[in-house]
Amino acid sequence: MNRLEEKTIKTEKIFDGRVISLQVEEVELPNGKTSKREIIKHPGAVAILPITNEGKIVMVEQYRKALERTIVEIPAGKLERGENPKNCALRELEEETGYICENLDWLISFYTSPGFADEVVHLYVATGLSKKENAASLDEDEFVNLLEITLPEAKQYIEEQKIYDAKTAYAVQYLELKESMKNK
Amino acid sequence: MNRLEEKTIKTEKIFDGRVISLQVEEVELPNGKTSKREIIKHPGAVAILPITNEGKIVMVEQYRKALERTIVEIPAGKLERGENPKNCALRELEEETGYICENLDWLISFYTSPGFADEVVHLYVATGLSKKENAASLDEDEFVNLLEITLPEAKQYIEEQKIYDAKTAYAVQYLELKESMKNK
Repeated sequence: MNRLEEKTIKTEKIFDGRVISLQVEEVELPNGKTSKREIIKHPGAVAILPITNEGKIVMVEQYRKALERTIVEIPAGKLERGENPKNCALRELEEETGYICENLDWLISFYTSPGFADEVVHLYVATGLSKKENAASLDEDEFVNLLEITLPEAKQYIEEQKIYDAKTAYAVQYLELKESMKNK
Repeated sequence: MNRLEEKTIKTEKIFDGRVISLQVEEVELPNGKTSKREIIKHPGAVAILPITNEGKIVMVEQYRKALERTIVEIPAGKLERGENPKNCALRELEEETGYICENLDWLISFYTSPGFADEVVHLYVATGLSKKENAASLDEDEFVNLLEITLPEAKQYIEEQKIYDAKTAYAVQYLELKESMKNK
């Protein structure tokens, strides 16, 4: 197997924002030549697949400025500095949906865009849901519509590209797989 | 349902790179207040799940500078300006693996990080593979190791976080689902 590592020669910091930062790294390639890599640093995020006691999936419709449209996603949110992903998942679930859960099980973690960003998403499944009175509320610049949909509806939303992001597509496919294995 | 749209008041362009560009948008929120959105523009990408005639999955091991490590992924690459995704998928498959295919079927498209980036990945399944003599070669700053693995090996790689990105995790789960439905 070939050596693949790229060594950093120089790092130029371009931008340090509220959510992301951007730096350009000059790297030495495995063949000794140099190239540049544009890299986004992100604090990481959690996503939660909440299943109600009736077997419905709780989702949020949200406007995504980067896409200039609304999409339907499973609840998710950025990690705060030093925050434990599991605690973050509980917090985001409550803030975005008003639900608390008895069980929160880690499913998978993945990088979303390894070509240019270090964002990792930790995905959990939440069951044993109940509505909390006086639930913690959304960040002041967050606005969502809450939906509770069946698995066939979620698959239809994927067809229609109302559901259109990787974490939610993964979560829906996970439920399909679980369903398929149960029916054997 | 609540109105969710955010109107752009002002766009500040921060960076225009080889792969991504960054802008900060001042937006008017649904409640009339203002906030800022940090947005990465990306040309979009394709990913290919190549299945050999022996039923193995073709993957590439690649160093990802954003992660400071190598990971194992399905072949993928950025769209060139104006490039048709299907043509891009055929090109990337040949460049990264040396394979050409008889069948290239679109599976799903998804946004990878809708919170801050407009990157969309178009995922295809390639079958009827054959090695091409004098195949097109990688970009001069790309270095990969080629792997051909079984589905159980791929699942093991996910456990070990050698496979660690959303598009590859989705692709492996897709094969699991297909397998599970076949065995019914």
